[in-house]
Amino acid sequence: MKSIIISIGDELLIGQVVNTNASWMANQLNAIGITVHRIITISDHGAEIIKTLKLAEEEADIILITGGLGPTKDDITKHTLTQYFNTHLVFNEDVYKQIEILFGQRGFAVTDINRRQAEVPANCKVIQNPCGTAPCMWFEKDNTLFFSLPGVPFEMEAIMEKEILPLLSQRVSGDFILQKTILTQGVGESFLSEIIADWEDKLPKSMGLAYLPQPGMVRLRLTAKGSDEALLKSTLDAELLKLQHLIPQYIWGYDHDTLESLIGKLLIQLHATVATAESCTGGYISHLITSVAGSSAYFKGGVISYDNQVKEEQLKVSKETLIKFGAVSRETVEEMAKGVQQLLHTDYSIAVSGIAGPDGGTVDKPVGTIWVAIATPTNIYSECFLHGEHRGRNIRKAALSALNMLRKSLIQG
Amino acid sequence: MKSIIISIGDELLIGQVVNTNASWMANQLNAIGITVHRIITISDHGAEIIKTLKLAEEEADIILITGGLGPTKDDITKHTLTQYFNTHLVFNEDVYKQIEILFGQRGFAVTDINRRQAEVPANCKVIQNPCGTAPCMWFEKDNTLFFSLPGVPFEMEAIMEKEILPLLSQRVSGDFILQKTILTQGVGESFLSEIIADWEDKLPKSMGLAYLPQPGMVRLRLTAKGSDEALLKSTLDAELLKLQHLIPQYIWGYDHDTLESLIGKLLIQLHATVATAESCTGGYISHLITSVAGSSAYFKGGVISYDNQVKEEQLKVSKETLIKFGAVSRETVEEMAKGVQQLLHTDYSIAVSGIAGPDGGTVDKPVGTIWVAIATPTNIYSECFLHGEHRGRNIRKAALSALNMLRKSLIQG
Repeated sequence: MKSIIISIGDELLIGQVVNTNASWMANQLNAIGITVHRIITISDHGAEIIKTLKLAEEEADIILITGGLGPTKDDITKHTLTQYFNTHLVFNEDVYKQIEILFGQRGFAVTDINRRQAEVPANCKVIQNPCGTAPCMWFEKDNTLFFSLPGVPFEMEAIMEKEILPLLSQRVSGDFILQKTILTQGVGESFLSEIIADWEDKLPKSMGLAYLPQPGMVRLRLTAKGSDEALLKSTLDAELLKLQHLIPQYIWGYDHDTLESLIGKLLIQLHATVATAESCTGGYISHLITSVAGSSAYFKGGVISYDNQVKEEQLKVSKETLIKFGAVSRETVEEMAKGVQQLLHTDYSIAVSGIAGPDGGTVDKPVGTIWVAIATPTNIYSECFLHGEHRGRNIRKAALSALNMLRKSLIQG
Repeated sequence: MKSIIISIGDELLIGQVVNTNASWMANQLNAIGITVHRIITISDHGAEIIKTLKLAEEEADIILITGGLGPTKDDITKHTLTQYFNTHLVFNEDVYKQIEILFGQRGFAVTDINRRQAEVPANCKVIQNPCGTAPCMWFEKDNTLFFSLPGVPFEMEAIMEKEILPLLSQRVSGDFILQKTILTQGVGESFLSEIIADWEDKLPKSMGLAYLPQPGMVRLRLTAKGSDEALLKSTLDAELLKLQHLIPQYIWGYDHDTLESLIGKLLIQLHATVATAESCTGGYISHLITSVAGSSAYFKGGVISYDNQVKEEQLKVSKETLIKFGAVSRETVEEMAKGVQQLLHTDYSIAVSGIAGPDGGTVDKPVGTIWVAIATPTNIYSECFLHGEHRGRNIRKAALSALNMLRKSLIQG
């Protein structure tokens, strides 16, 4: 089954609002085996809507429309659909009752303008909106299904989850889609693609691979498509196993995993605590760690030693080390890691010092040079990374490199 | 001038990535008077790309294409454009030099697969990509302009800002658009709209106002459109002045200002330094401060005192204060602020302690309760905020509240 999403709204075309609705819907539709063929964003303009509906009807079995259902004059989707399906508006008692309930909850009387939201095209089925005043309208024409939904994200999501996704799931016949996203770190897109080229070339025809690079990591998405779900699953698992054997050193997680949540789980398993000593990352690593709910169980705190005086006084990095090797060096990050581990009485610690840029680079230590040390209860590991020139991305990449090093230390002990 | 944005990428159609590129581009194009007629998202599929290009060509003067320019096998945009414009690939020395420079900076040798990124369609003009290996390709056909850009946001944005927007701006005739975004903090959208309702109603016809709420702030965007640029500018300035008189206490900046960059400028003017003591914000305030290039001139560092032991031992918060008033209290944040100011020898400090959630709330101190203290060379200010229930947004809102308090202290002295 092929679907098209039509997003209606001037606010989308002037870049005022990011179209998160379309990606949410696409994600949900794919999960039940419905391919999204195209996403089209158009303005609140009748002729445009009709032209787009005609084009979409030629290509798709399912057309999901969001937006333009509000009570004000600029919302014309309902009137345009009435015209498109050659019908007229009728007053729907059930929708009106729902509007009354919602207004009652907010302590308001129903206004005339909202009363008119209970008028719906005569030849549509109505799906109630549990969270708002604009109902969902469901049309069928020549085996194509049309759903017109409100553009307010939580209203659209509630209607999709409660009504439309179960309904479509039942109707879907044929192809299943299975997906697995493999998260890698420590290798660039082009190197990775060379390492796995042979494996990629030999993938079964039912499978596809996509590279999704982000600052500091590359995600690989494996997609399998076909009519036999059990066969798809075993094929996907088999290919995944081959990939795991090819690049074990780079894979750190799957699908929606984050390094900070994986680290949290590992620390809880080990009943261990961690602290941070951050220079160039300036608190970003601690921010990632504490963005996980419940992180107070294992994260005791940290010292942001932006100034060398803080490295010396708080973290007990020796003046000699700073003079002899510099703030961005193996020696300094190792002393920082040990210093914060002792200061905050933790089992593990992360220390980072580098040159985020744009200034401060030298020939020996260009912008993007990042030293990371991980102190464990029994050992210390350190490594130097050379990232790029962009300050924000260097901070992000340094943080991910450091978290991945901690993850490896937690697994290796 | 009418434009169409074509976003290419399977990751967009499965909902793995939200199409922020399209809204960023739409925003920028509107700002220079170019209407975005439609945004179309399609898969990495040759026939689809060609069909969409044909349709777009009928409707638009300018077609902006993003995505599908990576070095791997699933990236087919360049080959499809070569076919569409009936041409062949040629090796471009300048692009290759840029790839060599980028790889050299990272200490890598150029691989075969990246070398092929220097091949471009013979009949396009090349716009260099300062941040990546895939160049932008510029085609012209029957008065329609086509630009094919990389899908990596910062690469696309750099090329748009440096090259394409100035180029298109020159070609645009007709109406000018002027915009000014006013940044406010400390007031909700509906309350703000009531305060400025009269002013908004009396705005000249050439002007419009949009509310752009974000977690922790409301942005107001004033847009003026017309043929007389000088008149537009004076009208916009006059209305802005009225607004500044209406809500001086809420306005903290304009357009692309950030609180962290404003604070940086103020601290540099005062030759002053700052330190942070963060509990519930877990390093996020320090991260914002250090995201500004050159922040080492005024930011000495901070202590993330997630655990109460760190508040006591490092920040010298007294055990009595913690027991009597709790970690989330005026007394505690004030001691934290003074503690870190003394510890790191700074002129100013920020301290935050609160309940980010989802757990840890009580009847007296529900989730979202945040105490902030600012220590200055001569004084200490503290304030309690009650934000919402969402952990990530509470952290963000707490950080912005704290930075805004520091900004006010720096202005007031």
